[in-house]
Amino acid sequence: MIRFECDYNEGAHERILQRLISTNMEQTSGYGTDPHCHRARNLIRQACENEQADVHFLVGGTQTNTTVIASTLRPYQGVIAATSGHIAVHETGAIEATGHKVITVPSDDGKITPDQVKVVYEAHINDGSPEHCVQPGMVYISQPSENGTMYSKAELQALFDVSQQCGLPFFIDGARLGYALASRNCDMTLADLARLCDVFYIGGTKIGALMGEAVVILNNKLKPDFRYMIKQRGGLLAKGRLLGIQFETLFEDGLYLEISQHAVDMAMLIHDSLAEQGIAFLYDSPTNQQFPILPDDLLQELRNRYSFTFWEKVSDTHSVVRFCTSWATQRENVDSLLRDISQSLNKFKACV
Amino acid sequence: MIRFECDYNEGAHERILQRLISTNMEQTSGYGTDPHCHRARNLIRQACENEQADVHFLVGGTQTNTTVIASTLRPYQGVIAATSGHIAVHETGAIEATGHKVITVPSDDGKITPDQVKVVYEAHINDGSPEHCVQPGMVYISQPSENGTMYSKAELQALFDVSQQCGLPFFIDGARLGYALASRNCDMTLADLARLCDVFYIGGTKIGALMGEAVVILNNKLKPDFRYMIKQRGGLLAKGRLLGIQFETLFEDGLYLEISQHAVDMAMLIHDSLAEQGIAFLYDSPTNQQFPILPDDLLQELRNRYSFTFWEKVSDTHSVVRFCTSWATQRENVDSLLRDISQSLNKFKACV
Amino acid sequence: MIRFECDYNEGAHERILQRLISTNMEQTSGYGTDPHCHRARNLIRQACENEQADVHFLVGGTQTNTTVIASTLRPYQGVIAATSGHIAVHETGAIEATGHKVITVPSDDGKITPDQVKVVYEAHINDGSPEHCVQPGMVYISQPSENGTMYSKAELQALFDVSQQCGLPFFIDGARLGYALASRNCDMTLADLARLCDVFYIGGTKIGALMGEAVVILNNKLKPDFRYMIKQRGGLLAKGRLLGIQFETLFEDGLYLEISQHAVDMAMLIHDSLAEQGIAFLYDSPTNQQFPILPDDLLQELRNRYSFTFWEKVSDTHSVVRFCTSWATQRENVDSLLRDISQSLNKFKACV
Amino acid sequence: MIRFECDYNEGAHERILQRLISTNMEQTSGYGTDPHCHRARNLIRQACENEQADVHFLVGGTQTNTTVIASTLRPYQGVIAATSGHIAVHETGAIEATGHKVITVPSDDGKITPDQVKVVYEAHINDGSPEHCVQPGMVYISQPSENGTMYSKAELQALFDVSQQCGLPFFIDGARLGYALASRNCDMTLADLARLCDVFYIGGTKIGALMGEAVVILNNKLKPDFRYMIKQRGGLLAKGRLLGIQFETLFEDGLYLEISQHAVDMAMLIHDSLAEQGIAFLYDSPTNQQFPILPDDLLQELRNRYSFTFWEKVSDTHSVVRFCTSWATQRENVDSLLRDISQSLNKFKACV
Repeated sequence: MIRFECDYNEGAHERILQRLISTNMEQTSGYGTDPHCHRARNLIRQACENEQADVHFLVGGTQTNTTVIASTLRPYQGVIAATSGHIAVHETGAIEATGHKVITVPSDDGKITPDQVKVVYEAHINDGSPEHCVQPGMVYISQPSENGTMYSKAELQALFDVSQQCGLPFFIDGARLGYALASRNCDMTLADLARLCDVFYIGGTKIGALMGEAVVILNNKLKPDFRYMIKQRGGLLAKGRLLGIQFETLFEDGLYLEISQHAVDMAMLIHDSLAEQGIAFLYDSPTNQQFPILPDDLLQELRNRYSFTFWEKVSDTHSVVRFCTSWATQRENVDSLLRDISQSLNKFKACV
Repeated sequence: MIRFECDYNEGAHERILQRLISTNMEQTSGYGTDPHCHRARNLIRQACENEQADVHFLVGGTQTNTTVIASTLRPYQGVIAATSGHIAVHETGAIEATGHKVITVPSDDGKITPDQVKVVYEAHINDGSPEHCVQPGMVYISQPSENGTMYSKAELQALFDVSQQCGLPFFIDGARLGYALASRNCDMTLADLARLCDVFYIGGTKIGALMGEAVVILNNKLKPDFRYMIKQRGGLLAKGRLLGIQFETLFEDGLYLEISQHAVDMAMLIHDSLAEQGIAFLYDSPTNQQFPILPDDLLQELRNRYSFTFWEKVSDTHSVVRFCTSWATQRENVDSLLRDISQSLNKFKACV
Repeated sequence: MIRFECDYNEGAHERILQRLISTNMEQTSGYGTDPHCHRARNLIRQACENEQADVHFLVGGTQTNTTVIASTLRPYQGVIAATSGHIAVHETGAIEATGHKVITVPSDDGKITPDQVKVVYEAHINDGSPEHCVQPGMVYISQPSENGTMYSKAELQALFDVSQQCGLPFFIDGARLGYALASRNCDMTLADLARLCDVFYIGGTKIGALMGEAVVILNNKLKPDFRYMIKQRGGLLAKGRLLGIQFETLFEDGLYLEISQHAVDMAMLIHDSLAEQGIAFLYDSPTNQQFPILPDDLLQELRNRYSFTFWEKVSDTHSVVRFCTSWATQRENVDSLLRDISQSLNKFKACV
Repeated sequence: MIRFECDYNEGAHERILQRLISTNMEQTSGYGTDPHCHRARNLIRQACENEQADVHFLVGGTQTNTTVIASTLRPYQGVIAATSGHIAVHETGAIEATGHKVITVPSDDGKITPDQVKVVYEAHINDGSPEHCVQPGMVYISQPSENGTMYSKAELQALFDVSQQCGLPFFIDGARLGYALASRNCDMTLADLARLCDVFYIGGTKIGALMGEAVVILNNKLKPDFRYMIKQRGGLLAKGRLLGIQFETLFEDGLYLEISQHAVDMAMLIHDSLAEQGIAFLYDSPTNQQFPILPDDLLQELRNRYSFTFWEKVSDTHSVVRFCTSWATQRENVDSLLRDISQSLNKFKACV
């Protein structure tokens, strides 16, 4: 079974494992106060070109989103997100469990627009009795989105502008951030992105680490006491250095972008090959997740050798599925997948 | 600097690291559904001599306590714990953040008694207006306690009995469980303990793992939908196999107890050596944490070479400190510590 | 200024005030344990033809919805409701503040269908990883709905059936229940409704009381410890008899339905008069809220003498507004309103 | 049965009822936006000699404490209170249900000291890892305390000073505030108290109103968006004017203090009469709650005619009970109680 179902099917990049071994018997203090975390924080600040940024390491994505959002909102506030946003659908109500509503706006491709933010905000402040409704208190997006799509620099700028006009902190979930930065038409650097939001996180779990996410807080108002929030929400790892060592490795000489690039390259092989054969895609994704529309018969065959994610049925005979690549995807597995799909497509064509 | 300040100063036992490397490029499904988690669960069920137990892997202690407790209590219930219990003092209000009160009972040594449970329970049900007060809904203890002390089998039995009489699920926090099981006067096995509670967890973070705790649910009523709780509270690790691989390694041939034994042996070296020299201890701890009462001058000197935890001042001239050993503690470091303490003690005696 | 903006513009029905005066210096115990609450509970049980029902009195609607829902759901569950449901839009996130998601389904008229419940439920249980999503745990509707529309007995039966099939408690918000029961094509009694759900409440605030809602719990599983929930959520009124006295008055000889009937009669005067003049309505409401589509110019004029609620714009020249009647609405005010609307309509017609 | 068990055994002062009747058919807008609430707010501002104060009306005490505290604290903060504080013992965990710990300090008489606040605060900031513990975020006291005792002006000043030094908002629960202000050795006015805290509330439920508490916010930082909090926590009464009308009546010509004075006078009759006969008291209360230590045999007899609250057993033969007086207590009932106690005391003496 060759797996394309997600971007966390394997362990960690081998340099991370090597580093864990070489540092294993060092004695350090706990909870992220060790020299590795310290160095990793500095490396990330440099990559963000922002010496004042606060950098914290948490274990996983749900925990990170919950901690950032619960730390920012007042009790009667909610966070604006796409209906397809991770916090809206795939975190078992973790945001609500902190007491906050996710205020959803519709999205066809996983992205939201500045107008949508403005409409929600203005509808609220123009309501005759706003105190009867949840007050918008934050804007959440994912870059790239859960559908693989990506915001351009101009789009981020516009979202950040409208958020600031509305007084709403702008939070970017970067669980797969590397795969956006490494995409072929990406027009922004990590430093650009760090200038276009109040807080974001750099995903490690899905990009080469065993686990771990690095929260980067740019807005001074969001900085105080964040460690209390991490601890309360279960994210302050006793052996915090595990996270420091991983991000140190990922950021000391460009490994993060390098392995992201590999994943995107593998995804583009899939995309371009299928597109050439006339296959359509549900979303126009330049990143590591691809959503082709394929014949159900073909998918049935493919399941014998490959794992991938069923997304949705689009007709009596066709469905959308998701193929994920990652830092660990092997070229020969992609070739094999594409070869098998091509053969099946030809076979089915021949039948007709 | 030689560290005795806690039991998570180093990385992980080398066999765990080796296993992470040897399995690194395996492709597995996520969130604890992989073969390693499956096997680790079976090994733990065997060690507990309970084939029906549900076993779940979470990342850290605060998260584990929060998830178990929030999953068990009704909204108006609280959990009974010692004033010194980890959930009462060192989790930044994580239990309260799930909406529940920690109902504390006083404790000199970190342990609570069946009578204390009974008194809280009866005071509540005999109150004329019980609905004005938090209803006791669970009993929480740590084995060993935060002070290194240990419950005997008879004591656990008595606590479990009274909990059952009161209809209160009995939960044992085993963050350092191995260090209790390996202590020299321990009269119980893991399987014994698993028969004496409704739910408990086996700590990995403090005993050889990079991170990870294994929750073992014995009571059928506490089993349904526990994975929803883990996910909502941020504990469902994407690469869940990291936890499975570690517990597989710890439980496949007795490594967990073996390394716990080492830590306890090192602690006993400290204990016996100091006791012989007439040093008193704040708590009578047979486990990996030792709390000697030492002269402040001596401690001042010691700090140049060793890290340890200040606990409390007991007189104008003496303080209690905590020395922790762990699976990773090296004999030569213990010898060095004891040598330096002896020399200082002699020096101070000579002065007098 | 004559007010039609809501159904709580006045104080209380005079018989309630008289009863408050005549009982004022009685000494009774607090928190709903007094003889008036006792008698009111019995009267409501009789009206529901269910001697086993638990009846509790709370102060307001948001509090009641929050208490019932938080008492029913497990931490990872959410409540299914229409997008227009009161709990989804007008309670400042009170449900989320208890940790639960409101799972909304679209609705044009304020009502939801059994199919919508089934789709949400089946989508969840058929999800490959349901524990990553909020689990549906309850169904919430309002009878009549926030848009004045009403479920028939058959519709309630169908919703209750599907809820039971899915194992979801079915909760009816009856903030305006009397106005449904008194509507001209209502085919159910209070006792019928009490057989078609697990829990519901009878609104007092909007139907003749100073304040107060009576929760009726039919399902035995939802009964235990409900008073703890009321107390914790701030609903256990010290002078609980105030609520008992009011519901005693409303239910001892049919006052509740009698005054509801008056409100509906007044609403039908408005409805029939406007309909005769060719005015269309946004919702087909047989209850005390009417939503006519009127020319903006006319509305502008009307605002000088009458208060009512702007609902939404439907064209460049027309808007929907809401007129509410209540137990306290005076016939001459309705006549005056209708006269003024007719004159304006004629004037505008004459212009054309 | 003559009741002295609490201060909410009767309805409301008759002037309040008269006002409810005379205003009953006025049409006003809802949720506290009506002229009566407006006027009541102004009267309270005047009584507080603070034109900038925000005044809000809520329904009950638990709700008020919860709303004020949840509005003030950050998620990881707790509120310092006496172990006997109402929020610590008699609100079914309502504060914890908002996610916050009540940090208790011991108290013999219901009062806390500036030193206790300082110690909690300093222990926290001097902790090596403060983020592992709940951060003190507010100070809560009751004036008078739950035990009837009272803070002097100097004591309030000292508590306010230390709170400000520690950056902790200082909140006074005034559920029985009138009974403190009217006590014979009270050295402060309402305006004095309003200068000595950040936020407090004036209790109506226990002092002449049907229900209702008036929150007075002095500190500008605590003012924004408070109505959102009230609504979310179920305290925004639809017919808000009910609260406005009551506080208007209580504050327009001194009624609040006048009826409080009556209650205190009745309590002092009890106190002085018993003291004269050599009866000791558990607390030195100058307010409307009296806690005499009486022979169990006498109490047994007394229960046939009077209701009062058992407090605690102090010896094999004696217990403490609580007698409450209120604005509604009738002199003849007090006389009767004292006569019966005297007779019993003499009878028992005669036996000896």
